[in-house]
Amino acid sequence: MTIRENTLSIFALGGINEIGKNMYAIQYSNDIVIIDCGAKFPDESLLGIDLIIPDITYLLENKDKIRALIVTHGHEDHIGGIPYILKKLNVPIYATRFTLGLIELKLKEHRILRETELILIDSDSKFDLGEISVSFFKTSHSIPDCLGIVFHTPEGNVVHTGDFKFDLTPVNNQYSDIHKMAEIGRGDVLVLLSESTNAERPGSTPSEQIVGDHIEDAFMKAKRKVIISTFASNVNRVQQVVDSAIKTNRKLALLGRSMVNVVSVAMEHGYLNVPDGLLIDAKEINQLPPEKVAILCTGSQGEPMAALSRLASSNYRDVDILPEDTVIIAAGPIPGNERNVSRIVDNLFSLGAKVIYGSGSVTGMHVSGHGYQEDLKLMLTLMKPKYFIPIHGEFRMLHQHRLLAESVGVGKDHTFIINNGDVVDINNSVARQTRKIPAGNIYVDGVGVGDIGDVVLRDRKQLSEDGMLVIVITLSKTERKIVSGPDTISRGFVYAPDSEDLLRDVNRLVKTTVNDLQEANIHQWNVMKQNIKKSIGQYLYTHTKRKPMILPIIIEV
Amino acid sequence: MTIRENTLSIFALGGINEIGKNMYAIQYSNDIVIIDCGAKFPDESLLGIDLIIPDITYLLENKDKIRALIVTHGHEDHIGGIPYILKKLNVPIYATRFTLGLIELKLKEHRILRETELILIDSDSKFDLGEISVSFFKTSHSIPDCLGIVFHTPEGNVVHTGDFKFDLTPVNNQYSDIHKMAEIGRGDVLVLLSESTNAERPGSTPSEQIVGDHIEDAFMKAKRKVIISTFASNVNRVQQVVDSAIKTNRKLALLGRSMVNVVSVAMEHGYLNVPDGLLIDAKEINQLPPEKVAILCTGSQGEPMAALSRLASSNYRDVDILPEDTVIIAAGPIPGNERNVSRIVDNLFSLGAKVIYGSGSVTGMHVSGHGYQEDLKLMLTLMKPKYFIPIHGEFRMLHQHRLLAESVGVGKDHTFIINNGDVVDINNSVARQTRKIPAGNIYVDGVGVGDIGDVVLRDRKQLSEDGMLVIVITLSKTERKIVSGPDTISRGFVYAPDSEDLLRDVNRLVKTTVNDLQEANIHQWNVMKQNIKKSIGQYLYTHTKRKPMILPIIIEV
Repeated sequence: MTIRENTLSIFALGGINEIGKNMYAIQYSNDIVIIDCGAKFPDESLLGIDLIIPDITYLLENKDKIRALIVTHGHEDHIGGIPYILKKLNVPIYATRFTLGLIELKLKEHRILRETELILIDSDSKFDLGEISVSFFKTSHSIPDCLGIVFHTPEGNVVHTGDFKFDLTPVNNQYSDIHKMAEIGRGDVLVLLSESTNAERPGSTPSEQIVGDHIEDAFMKAKRKVIISTFASNVNRVQQVVDSAIKTNRKLALLGRSMVNVVSVAMEHGYLNVPDGLLIDAKEINQLPPEKVAILCTGSQGEPMAALSRLASSNYRDVDILPEDTVIIAAGPIPGNERNVSRIVDNLFSLGAKVIYGSGSVTGMHVSGHGYQEDLKLMLTLMKPKYFIPIHGEFRMLHQHRLLAESVGVGKDHTFIINNGDVVDINNSVARQTRKIPAGNIYVDGVGVGDIGDVVLRDRKQLSEDGMLVIVITLSKTERKIVSGPDTISRGFVYAPDSEDLLRDVNRLVKTTVNDLQEANIHQWNVMKQNIKKSIGQYLYTHTKRKPMILPIIIEV
Repeated sequence: MTIRENTLSIFALGGINEIGKNMYAIQYSNDIVIIDCGAKFPDESLLGIDLIIPDITYLLENKDKIRALIVTHGHEDHIGGIPYILKKLNVPIYATRFTLGLIELKLKEHRILRETELILIDSDSKFDLGEISVSFFKTSHSIPDCLGIVFHTPEGNVVHTGDFKFDLTPVNNQYSDIHKMAEIGRGDVLVLLSESTNAERPGSTPSEQIVGDHIEDAFMKAKRKVIISTFASNVNRVQQVVDSAIKTNRKLALLGRSMVNVVSVAMEHGYLNVPDGLLIDAKEINQLPPEKVAILCTGSQGEPMAALSRLASSNYRDVDILPEDTVIIAAGPIPGNERNVSRIVDNLFSLGAKVIYGSGSVTGMHVSGHGYQEDLKLMLTLMKPKYFIPIHGEFRMLHQHRLLAESVGVGKDHTFIINNGDVVDINNSVARQTRKIPAGNIYVDGVGVGDIGDVVLRDRKQLSEDGMLVIVITLSKTERKIVSGPDTISRGFVYAPDSEDLLRDVNRLVKTTVNDLQEANIHQWNVMKQNIKKSIGQYLYTHTKRKPMILPIIIEV
């Protein structure tokens, strides 16, 4: 399909029908600007996969048109894919100070910092990227230095919110610039792309300050040491932990690599105020009275190798959790992590700790960084867009967001619920969703990027459920008879020493199958293997109700 | 360890540190009474396992002492293990009418109904089981006909609550007999075993009637057909769906095997009032105007083969979900099922349906059957036990339940937090927890019960994460050299056609490894295999950061 000159096109390469790997793009004629490049963690069905990143086939085919990657903020689902795509697509990256700091950490790890062009911007920046001009506005979220973006194109203005909530009492001045948003909305907004993570939740998102109040209370009440776990990137929450430690006259130790890294970036660039002498090393914890110590650590999602999990299983050098210690999990479990978090809480109770855990609405120890329904309606009201594309969410969230838009006056037929790869084209102020570009999941497994496909995953699934039975048989080339085997080797199917009878029956059946074929003068390996698979598969299913992978190996000598 | 005569012993064989497979027992001298025999569904770490049941080694060793299995109610985590243990331990089963009905369905499926002794009881029953006398009290839960049990022993009385909440406005007369509980408590209760599922939730459990009100509202508002999904065993909720269908002049179709089965048991025994002519067949749905139809179906937990999932993916013969249909998921997702439920909701939105879903506290379409903190405190207050054993829950719930007991006057040192297999022995009114009996998980996989152990599961895990590389090599017995191979076969590791270079390198390395050993005059297969595993393992980890299972196969001819 050919696209008319002067068409404004908007599409997602990731972030739709999922929470994760956000990547969107705006194209006007020969200029493309990319917004974010996130990664996603696999669910348990993607066996062995480490990470998922967006498919950027379309961008590679249009390399010459790409002007910039603008990053709205520094969360993994917005920056996690950057090191992988940079290896194929060297594009200048625009981001604010804190976001750049986190990107730099990542690029250093992947050893590609030097060859990458990083451009520092702030919410007052304005510049041209071909025929597209961009400007920005400040938003509140659960990480400092977040941006919304305005794309000024000859066809009209497109606003991308980034991730946001409205926090009217923010910590460390991380406010939402409502005045600037109103000004943008007073001009004409042709299309609004707004995030949908919490489109299912009624009401307004509580302010981060509420968490600070609860942390302070818990620090006050704690009779011995306090261990608090939260997301390292939530610097404003870290600030509140720091403040509570100061107020209750405790020293603070940081545990966990990402906590140490992110805090150091945040301190370096002034996003975090930590007085000299507050921070102590893990080794010093036991030298102080317990009521003079607090520990801030990673692992609030139950990650098995992170600090909190190791503390809970008494497996952290220099630090023990003792009876009457207070442990605070200042984060709600992200769906899928509940079981791991629960195991940690079980262990902490067994150690005699006082544990404050559970959803933020019960404990007050967590608030979301994503706007609830009233926040989303406020954004829609401020921007008054002609067209609306809900982004950043699973389909049900996008549908709920569409209903919210309708309730504040965006016509149902002016909202586009797109999937990754769908393109919304706008000409003469008329938007249509008609074409598709390639989009999908690229799997990262170890050092391999994109080399694991459906065949390998299907095999892993079968292997995971019922294991494998390897059947080796050696045939004589000249005499056409079995000279060795059949030998059967089980891995993950049955425990061989306990299943001698079954395996003996299998061997007997293989022998019969092969002999029958030989007698019928059928010697093709493929046919033999097919027949072995079929007869053994049926036999095993009848006798065990299991379907292991059967791998016949025929050697001819 | 020997136990004194006249000792009262209490232990759990399942249900502690887990939600599922409840099985408890009371022993006095030579009499053992079992309470419940549940099953548990495996989490995703137990690859390929279908079901988990309790280890009953101790009971098998004491077969002659076992007097009865009393079943408190008909949920899977209380009856699911029965068919499996009956095959090893033929014990008479005591249960109420509805519970027996569900057990009968199960035994029929396993073809062991005829040889099982089933004894019908009700909350007024009283009988002796050796030196232990038992009586009962009615409780409210999310299934009809639930019992709490009182064990009268020479040492004192033990109360087991079963699963319960207090519902003061129950549906279909499924009330909590608070007067009888008070009477039991006025006598001396030596030990209380009380369930802990909701010990983390503040407040009181809402009444089931609230759900009925919300269902009726939704039926009233619905302009086209209504599809509602809930647990088949929640007969009182089913009754409320029936009532709403009648009030809104809709016919009702039942979809899903367990819905049809359970409703027929409930109707047969009078637990459900369904007027003649209300129920229709799935085929009749399309013959009626959509506003005259409701559908009650299974699949509220997102089970991929259940009716709701098939409806949502437009994959159910005779029934389509069309725009403006109303779909109600009248159940909260059980932890672990969120993702499956969410996918269904996404699909339903895409079909244009109005979907009412999410936690019961938001939709009003679900209330728990387990008592919240105030319910648990009321039970503790009614029973005034000397000793308390919180059961039926993960450790954090048991610890929270202990705190609740403390708050109503049960001394901290009078509460025993036990694990499966721990025994609480009571002599002369003094309780001690000192000994252990065997307890654990028995895995059911296909027709195999207990034949899958740690070795097989470990193999499945490795296979699931990085697959397998089979390396076949044929050696000449006489000349001590490679006559065929090495051939490498990948399953779940890499896709062979895309990885020719890597596999060629592997072959080369295997050849070198074998030749080096031969030259060093080392011919033992074990040593050769170890060396191949090691060198190839290292090579693959260096080049791919993956650790497939490596299976070297050496053939000698």
